[in-house]
Amino acid sequence: MNHTLETILNHRSIRKFTEDKLTNEQIHTLIKAAQQASTSSNVMAYTIIGVTDPILKNELRKVSGQTYVEHNGHLFVFCGDLHRISQLAKPEELVEMEETIESTEQFIVTTIDAALSAQNLAIAAESMGLGICYLGSLRNDIYRVSELLGLPEYVIPLFGMAVGTPAHKPELKPRLPFEAVYHENKYKTDESQQTSISFYDAQLQEYYQTRSSNTKTDKWSGQMIRKYRNPIRMDVSSFVKEQKLNKR
Amino acid sequence: MNHTLETILNHRSIRKFTEDKLTNEQIHTLIKAAQQASTSSNVMAYTIIGVTDPILKNELRKVSGQTYVEHNGHLFVFCGDLHRISQLAKPEELVEMEETIESTEQFIVTTIDAALSAQNLAIAAESMGLGICYLGSLRNDIYRVSELLGLPEYVIPLFGMAVGTPAHKPELKPRLPFEAVYHENKYKTDESQQTSISFYDAQLQEYYQTRSSNTKTDKWSGQMIRKYRNPIRMDVSSFVKEQKLNKR
Repeated sequence: MNHTLETILNHRSIRKFTEDKLTNEQIHTLIKAAQQASTSSNVMAYTIIGVTDPILKNELRKVSGQTYVEHNGHLFVFCGDLHRISQLAKPEELVEMEETIESTEQFIVTTIDAALSAQNLAIAAESMGLGICYLGSLRNDIYRVSELLGLPEYVIPLFGMAVGTPAHKPELKPRLPFEAVYHENKYKTDESQQTSISFYDAQLQEYYQTRSSNTKTDKWSGQMIRKYRNPIRMDVSSFVKEQKLNKR
Repeated sequence: MNHTLETILNHRSIRKFTEDKLTNEQIHTLIKAAQQASTSSNVMAYTIIGVTDPILKNELRKVSGQTYVEHNGHLFVFCGDLHRISQLAKPEELVEMEETIESTEQFIVTTIDAALSAQNLAIAAESMGLGICYLGSLRNDIYRVSELLGLPEYVIPLFGMAVGTPAHKPELKPRLPFEAVYHENKYKTDESQQTSISFYDAQLQEYYQTRSSNTKTDKWSGQMIRKYRNPIRMDVSSFVKEQKLNKR
């Protein structure tokens, strides 16, 4: 197995970092890796904000509720960004561009562009011996995050990523079976799907009971039902529209 | 520089493949890599459909208009999927879960989950000497793709990916300068952004004029303005809502 596959297959989210800060050279390498990801029609519809100001980091931790938003080697916030494109145009051209910029299609483009660049950054960091954790928790108060980072219209904060030197090594968490996630030619809705999920429920329960910290008794299906019965972040929808994305 | 960084930094989209098909072992390795990506709260809100049926591939090529959708080593279609989650619930539970499943927040979750898994698959493939090309073009007729793949409610086809043995080696395409994409602490709107874009316009023009095939005279800013003045895929919005996602 090559070094890249090893890196990818050994991914675990890191939630405790040493106080070592990333060097400027490391940051440049990671951003270069992020930028080399594919991008829809070369739009590069994202901006990455590196947060170094301790006051700002503290405020972002309050939004997320996670200590590792404050304590890490570096904090990145990935934003979907169609503002840059809008600035290229003369005012009369921008009027004509609005229908496109504000479409759900372009909302998908900007979200995927940002995510692809983030995953390149994640893999690059892990290949360098660093650990990472995605922070969807910044969407707990997306209005506040946007205000803190000074985001103009057509820009939304999608998620953060804490990067740094790992200070723990969690077990690898099992994933759904291959057959659940990979279908051939048609989407499968037969009972094989139920079998896969029952298998995974048992496997994840075993993982929770035997892992080295935070052991518990739980199953995936039960977790998911509980999670989805509690609506969260319902204001993301209005926020995105106020930023003039995903409107039509 | 390690093998992983080399792989990431050497990415170029491949649009001509030999007729060599991926082996089952390669497909399993790639899906395992895809699954090891981070996922929001362990939701794993995506399904990957491998398309091998020649008739189906031909139909998907008609949607995209790109020959390499038909001629490749393997064709993957990445779908945002909250159907799996919905199937875990009893009917009375599902009623309670609908508000969450149909939210823009969960539409973001499913899109990001699918994209992170796809980028892992892309990097894994490239590390194995294969080439890849993302196919946003499947959204040219998202209704048709959904019909062809038999997608139930709460599932949407986000993009495809052609994978295979490269039959050409395009030049590396330059990206926006570091300063355009990476900001510190606050979103930057000063004139440094305009300077970056002027620099990139000149750089991309040079690239287009000197590359080994399909040379042309064009600038990034002009391309983007032209692109965004022509609304495309405006039916993605209604399609997504009919699949009961991104509704509230």
